[in-house]
Amino acid sequence: MYSMNELILKKRNGGVLDEGEIRYIIKEYTDGNIPDYQMSAFLMAVWFKGMNDEETSFLTMAMAESGDMLDLSEIKKSTGGQPIIDKHSTGGVGDKTTLIIGPILAALGVHVAKMSGRGLGHTGGTIDKLESIPGFSSELTEEEFLEQVKSVGFADMCQTRNLAPADKKIYALRDVTGTVDNYSLIASSIMSKKLASGADGIVLDVKCGSGAFMKDIPSARKLADIMVRIGKKCGRNVTAVISDMNEPLGRFVGNSLEVMEAVKVLQGGGDERLCELSVRLAAEMLLLAEDKKESGLEDALKRVNEVLSNGKALQKFREFTAAQGGDTGFTYEDGGLEKAKYMIPVRVEKAGILVSCDTEKVGLATLSLGGGREKLTDSIDPAVGVEICHHLGDKVEKGDILAIIYANDESKAETAEKYIREAYETGIPEQGNTKKPLILDIIR
Amino acid sequence: MYSMNELILKKRNGGVLDEGEIRYIIKEYTDGNIPDYQMSAFLMAVWFKGMNDEETSFLTMAMAESGDMLDLSEIKKSTGGQPIIDKHSTGGVGDKTTLIIGPILAALGVHVAKMSGRGLGHTGGTIDKLESIPGFSSELTEEEFLEQVKSVGFADMCQTRNLAPADKKIYALRDVTGTVDNYSLIASSIMSKKLASGADGIVLDVKCGSGAFMKDIPSARKLADIMVRIGKKCGRNVTAVISDMNEPLGRFVGNSLEVMEAVKVLQGGGDERLCELSVRLAAEMLLLAEDKKESGLEDALKRVNEVLSNGKALQKFREFTAAQGGDTGFTYEDGGLEKAKYMIPVRVEKAGILVSCDTEKVGLATLSLGGGREKLTDSIDPAVGVEICHHLGDKVEKGDILAIIYANDESKAETAEKYIREAYETGIPEQGNTKKPLILDIIR
Repeated sequence: MYSMNELILKKRNGGVLDEGEIRYIIKEYTDGNIPDYQMSAFLMAVWFKGMNDEETSFLTMAMAESGDMLDLSEIKKSTGGQPIIDKHSTGGVGDKTTLIIGPILAALGVHVAKMSGRGLGHTGGTIDKLESIPGFSSELTEEEFLEQVKSVGFADMCQTRNLAPADKKIYALRDVTGTVDNYSLIASSIMSKKLASGADGIVLDVKCGSGAFMKDIPSARKLADIMVRIGKKCGRNVTAVISDMNEPLGRFVGNSLEVMEAVKVLQGGGDERLCELSVRLAAEMLLLAEDKKESGLEDALKRVNEVLSNGKALQKFREFTAAQGGDTGFTYEDGGLEKAKYMIPVRVEKAGILVSCDTEKVGLATLSLGGGREKLTDSIDPAVGVEICHHLGDKVEKGDILAIIYANDESKAETAEKYIREAYETGIPEQGNTKKPLILDIIR
Repeated sequence: MYSMNELILKKRNGGVLDEGEIRYIIKEYTDGNIPDYQMSAFLMAVWFKGMNDEETSFLTMAMAESGDMLDLSEIKKSTGGQPIIDKHSTGGVGDKTTLIIGPILAALGVHVAKMSGRGLGHTGGTIDKLESIPGFSSELTEEEFLEQVKSVGFADMCQTRNLAPADKKIYALRDVTGTVDNYSLIASSIMSKKLASGADGIVLDVKCGSGAFMKDIPSARKLADIMVRIGKKCGRNVTAVISDMNEPLGRFVGNSLEVMEAVKVLQGGGDERLCELSVRLAAEMLLLAEDKKESGLEDALKRVNEVLSNGKALQKFREFTAAQGGDTGFTYEDGGLEKAKYMIPVRVEKAGILVSCDTEKVGLATLSLGGGREKLTDSIDPAVGVEICHHLGDKVEKGDILAIIYANDESKAETAEKYIREAYETGIPEQGNTKKPLILDIIR
């Protein structure tokens, strides 16, 4: 039998915990037999002393197995045993890639069984975005969910199952005890949920920059490295794409605005950076699903682009939307989703090059308009949001439109405008060009 | 307004907390507004990052002021404003110095208002020892207590007031979250209680060795240093005596046995080491009470020895005992306190020099006989205990009596004997002589 106080001391003194010890901690904490005050002291000791890959893998598996483990074998049977690939983003602003990637892969015959969450704070949630489509329901039974994946190739439901409850409980504790920013704890939190949701392979979109949790490339790479390594230790193929989050992804931030932007990409157009990342993530998932090496990337990219240009991905999006009860009669050009009452332009005050963006503030602008949640019980206004008219590195003149605010309340629009003005800086770029690559690294 | 999560982060990242921040933490934690899980994470961050002297002083004062602050000004008035000096031992085995020092100082006209505790684990408590005197009561009202200090010069009552409740609550948490062994936390815990109990000056007996919390001289000195410094920052004169605890203090361990041994010292005899430490601690207290410098030490020692040899200290002990309802008709030679049924000698098995003692085991031997408490609600057998017949460095032959076990239960005596045998080792000392000095350092 273990003593939690002894295990705290062991970690505090730099010891390495074995599988039994880690399983004991996770099980007894989840069951309420280890009190929060011992767990938080333990987590702080982990913050200082770290965990090696083996400990992190044990932690990940123990958390994954703390609740339901989704069984997707039925779906696999329907595609002759093709591995199920999941995608996970570490969270950014304007990220609507799931809405694009799911249909792409379904169009290529790869099944995507996605469970998504609602947004909180400055980052939006995929479920909130989808629910801005009139009639769309994310509340599927597990049977409906699996059935739709088999028939349409893509379904996205709100996570309802008791997945990785240990992670949920530990995350809530870390949030209030100064123990959020530790690589092992972040990595195991993300990976435990992915493992519990039944994926054989995972493509991680590790965001990096002012709108992301990881602010610079070395830390994003470190997190990606750990997740790829522990994924392998847990028997999963993992590819991590490190992508820039020094400005919003795409031009729109806000629920229905983002859905329309995703549709535009599926129509074969849309923002170049959003398009680039969606295509790359889809291609990496395709490689994992078909168990191909990196050498197959060019072919994968070609096939992904094909279903975007020939309308097959868009067609899958319509099928997917319809299957979940959503209206399918809207396009980017014609609208069709709920519109905000006011469109308020924010104009450039100082000419120059757009040199930096505090991306989190763009997220906060949308939040302040009512387009996000400060707490989980808040309701959301799907119509509001922000359109950013320029990318970093663009040359702008005084009076140019920097952004458009979509608001239903003029006083809220003022707060949002303040955030947008604070977010962007014009000036002379340090090295002649602030156009930065979107995809910063790939770790396999 | 402060956020506890932010304060945890500040300390975790190596920041220095200011007085307001520390007072906030202590007050809100004591009031139950900061949960245990945040406090334990904070304490672990303190364990890793430490606290500087100023922080430790703020912590000490905040904990001292978290409950009642004893007002001893009335006693001071009765002695023309002479400072009230307290003594505190960090805890050892066989330590009965309070029973000797109180009467000595009272005999020298210095008032000692002592509040003591009960024992737990391998160390005994002064109150338990005193209560082995038939009729003795440690449950005084505050009025009775102060009155006795004024009339007799010495009173010792069981701590009943709500002194430093913050320390009590924090200590209980540290005990189960791997955060006991930190100098700032130990020092502030000890000093906060002393400050709350109204002392102007404090002589600290910092025990060092196998029976003490501090196992070696550098750590004992570090703890002593911090306590002297924070005492000064809090406006108190503090002298720390670092004393050896690599074997029990004196020859007896067990409640009534220790009272009789203390009486023997007060009769002018007794164990040399016990006598040396008692005299030194009393002289250091005298210096503080009379606000004299170290240069007055020789005179102070002389005066202390005088009241021991002329019977005045013993007379004060009788007065003190009588005032608290205790029998006064006992001496070391004649007995008079409750006796154990069995006296079982433990004989030396291997000739040589006594080279080491695991002192904690001698404490555990007494505990196993029923002479101590494993938990606070246990009752105590005052008669049982151990007499150690040799000091470290003594030459012993096979068959010599190493110790005598005083037991009321033969099976318990077996366990005690096992502990005693395990505790002592005979051999060839590494450097010719294992006689070590008792007083290792003085820090002012």
